[in-house]
Amino acid sequence: MPTDTAKPPIDQHRLWSEHMALAEITDPGKPWTRRSFSPRFLDGRAWLREQFLAAGMTVRLDAGANMIARLEGSIEGLPIIMLGSHSDTVPSGGRFDGISGILTALEAVRALQATGYAFRHPIEIVDFLAEEPSEYGLSCVGSRAMVGELDAKMLTYTNALGETLADAIVRVGGDPSKIPDMAKPNIAGYLELHIEQGVVLERNKLDLGLVTGIAGITRVEIIMQGAADHAGSTLMQYRRDASLPAAELLLMVDREARAFAARNRGHFVATVGVLEISPNAANVVPGAARLIIDIRAEETALVEEFVALFDRESKAIAGRLNVDRARFAILSQNPPAPCDAHLRDLLGRSAEKLGYSTTTLASGAGHDAAFLSHIGPSAMLFIPSKDGKSHCPEEWSTPEQLAVGAATLYEAVRLLDGQNA
Amino acid sequence: MPTDTAKPPIDQHRLWSEHMALAEITDPGKPWTRRSFSPRFLDGRAWLREQFLAAGMTVRLDAGANMIARLEGSIEGLPIIMLGSHSDTVPSGGRFDGISGILTALEAVRALQATGYAFRHPIEIVDFLAEEPSEYGLSCVGSRAMVGELDAKMLTYTNALGETLADAIVRVGGDPSKIPDMAKPNIAGYLELHIEQGVVLERNKLDLGLVTGIAGITRVEIIMQGAADHAGSTLMQYRRDASLPAAELLLMVDREARAFAARNRGHFVATVGVLEISPNAANVVPGAARLIIDIRAEETALVEEFVALFDRESKAIAGRLNVDRARFAILSQNPPAPCDAHLRDLLGRSAEKLGYSTTTLASGAGHDAAFLSHIGPSAMLFIPSKDGKSHCPEEWSTPEQLAVGAATLYEAVRLLDGQNA
Repeated sequence: MPTDTAKPPIDQHRLWSEHMALAEITDPGKPWTRRSFSPRFLDGRAWLREQFLAAGMTVRLDAGANMIARLEGSIEGLPIIMLGSHSDTVPSGGRFDGISGILTALEAVRALQATGYAFRHPIEIVDFLAEEPSEYGLSCVGSRAMVGELDAKMLTYTNALGETLADAIVRVGGDPSKIPDMAKPNIAGYLELHIEQGVVLERNKLDLGLVTGIAGITRVEIIMQGAADHAGSTLMQYRRDASLPAAELLLMVDREARAFAARNRGHFVATVGVLEISPNAANVVPGAARLIIDIRAEETALVEEFVALFDRESKAIAGRLNVDRARFAILSQNPPAPCDAHLRDLLGRSAEKLGYSTTTLASGAGHDAAFLSHIGPSAMLFIPSKDGKSHCPEEWSTPEQLAVGAATLYEAVRLLDGQNA
Repeated sequence: MPTDTAKPPIDQHRLWSEHMALAEITDPGKPWTRRSFSPRFLDGRAWLREQFLAAGMTVRLDAGANMIARLEGSIEGLPIIMLGSHSDTVPSGGRFDGISGILTALEAVRALQATGYAFRHPIEIVDFLAEEPSEYGLSCVGSRAMVGELDAKMLTYTNALGETLADAIVRVGGDPSKIPDMAKPNIAGYLELHIEQGVVLERNKLDLGLVTGIAGITRVEIIMQGAADHAGSTLMQYRRDASLPAAELLLMVDREARAFAARNRGHFVATVGVLEISPNAANVVPGAARLIIDIRAEETALVEEFVALFDRESKAIAGRLNVDRARFAILSQNPPAPCDAHLRDLLGRSAEKLGYSTTTLASGAGHDAAFLSHIGPSAMLFIPSKDGKSHCPEEWSTPEQLAVGAATLYEAVRLLDGQNA
């Protein structure tokens, strides 16, 4: 029987094969696509269910249509050790974002079982519903439901066909009418492995990232309104070109985001990901320009300072360039979610024991772990992403990197299970 | 009988009524739309034909499906005095762009007839086919055909349904097979009245613009290629954001165009009317950016200097910002078309005789007159546009302004007809 110091018996080959098998459940001709609520998504879940059952776990759906695999613990009444992530993808996404957190958890549990380990706590592996932005205009649908933050209004959101989110949840096996009364699970800790989706680990040749927190995300929409005049006959001095203030703001977002990041008060990035001018015709001076600024930081005060700066500056620029700032609106504002320091430390000790190199870093992307942190200790473990690519077919982590992650989860679960004995 | 000094008997009310009547022939629910080759366009032409016939003119279509109304002159073999413009519109355009040039010409001819005037030269009023950018990706279709510049390749252009331009021309009554052998008309002069589509006349409270020339139009497409990374997890220093060089170029186009215009070497404007980033999603760093620069000038050397500047600068900016300049292409290059100085002088003397104030100015917009200048003397007369608006429902000129234009055409035609007697 293996001792405490034995190497975790992670089956790297099986872990990799399972990644490829689940990834292959994709919309044909559009790899890798398994959109939440789609027939393909249900095919993926059917496949996952088989793997959970084969590992001796029970499988159920909660009212929010989260698929939950469970192993009972030996001691009655202990809180749940929860692991997981999500099996849905963005359109034309990658083969790792989401499923790696589920499959490494399953591999860790199976490896512990293989050593004859007897769990004291109940173990749950959760495939959270619709973590990626869904066709209903909402992300993290399942984790919101689990922590009591999927409200009645959100359930009325519709997709392009007019189906409500509530009806879609029914369609995949949930029961929206029971979501308001769902009991929040009592968790000892939630651990989520994810690919980094950035290049910090790769550039620094590190095995693992210990996540300090999940950045808050604030989105601001700005619309500049000028005049759409003839591009040939409107002399330069008579123009009210709305693209000019947009371009100035875009450059300022980049410049100021670098300055804010350089203050070293945690993760800080800002992006103008959406920029549209209208009518967008070669022979017309742009009459309107719309941009969305996405700001992510671990510290709320920095976000507030950044937003206030752009409120002031966008007004000033509009005034100077003789256009109207027709809109300045905060579209959404999700607060940062710090990871649990104790769980992070436990992940760090697990990695250290196995000889893996680590760094602390923040998650700039949103994750189900952010919602789980509202009801109990929650932490994340990152493995490297090749070139930082994610949400695209080039997304890549190696079999070895996945196995390193699974082994670290194995150790962390054992440590957590042994605590509060 | 009126003498030379009598006021031209322009019927302002009739001229206005005819504008409103023809404009009302529009796609319902999408005023003011009469797209070339559409059933509505043919309805408009049927209405116009009635007015020409009522004025005692013959009406024919040439091989390029230009509709030509004609009055014979009293002296055999004299060259044609040609007037006209176009009856098609952009989608959701205005009520004046195009038809004012036809209806003021008709009013001038009728007014001359009313005075008992006997034309020495033949008079033709032409409704040129498809002056506006058509569904087949080409503008000035009819005037190109008339001057021998509608080539075989252009006739193969297709619309979204796959119909060729050649088939479309057949559909509206032309005969593409005969276009290569069309005789170029022998013209004494071509005069086209048009709304200014700018604010020079309005701002300076002037009645008429005597057009010095039609600016050449050059279009350049630039594509910047960076990397579409996650907007949350990609730190600022690791980004290759393609929107940044696009924004720098956009601001530089505006700045340099003002500097070029300030050199006072004729009309000079430049516009970034098309700007697109991809994937254009709030949570993705822009991986590519595309822009189209539209440059218009009376002097070709200035355009060449401007294009060379942007060739150099776009390369330098891409290098500095670590993105690739994936494309720098001249999409189209139409040379400037100077208006005939003698005809412009004749228009100026006509206006002066009637007591109207004038200025010389360039046309930044393209017109059929540019093509006509390739086969004979060609000139344009501008009337004011309210707020410079054009190609939109707000496009507006007053009944008085239209009548001033028609009266000036009346005098100019009489002067031209009296020459070379």
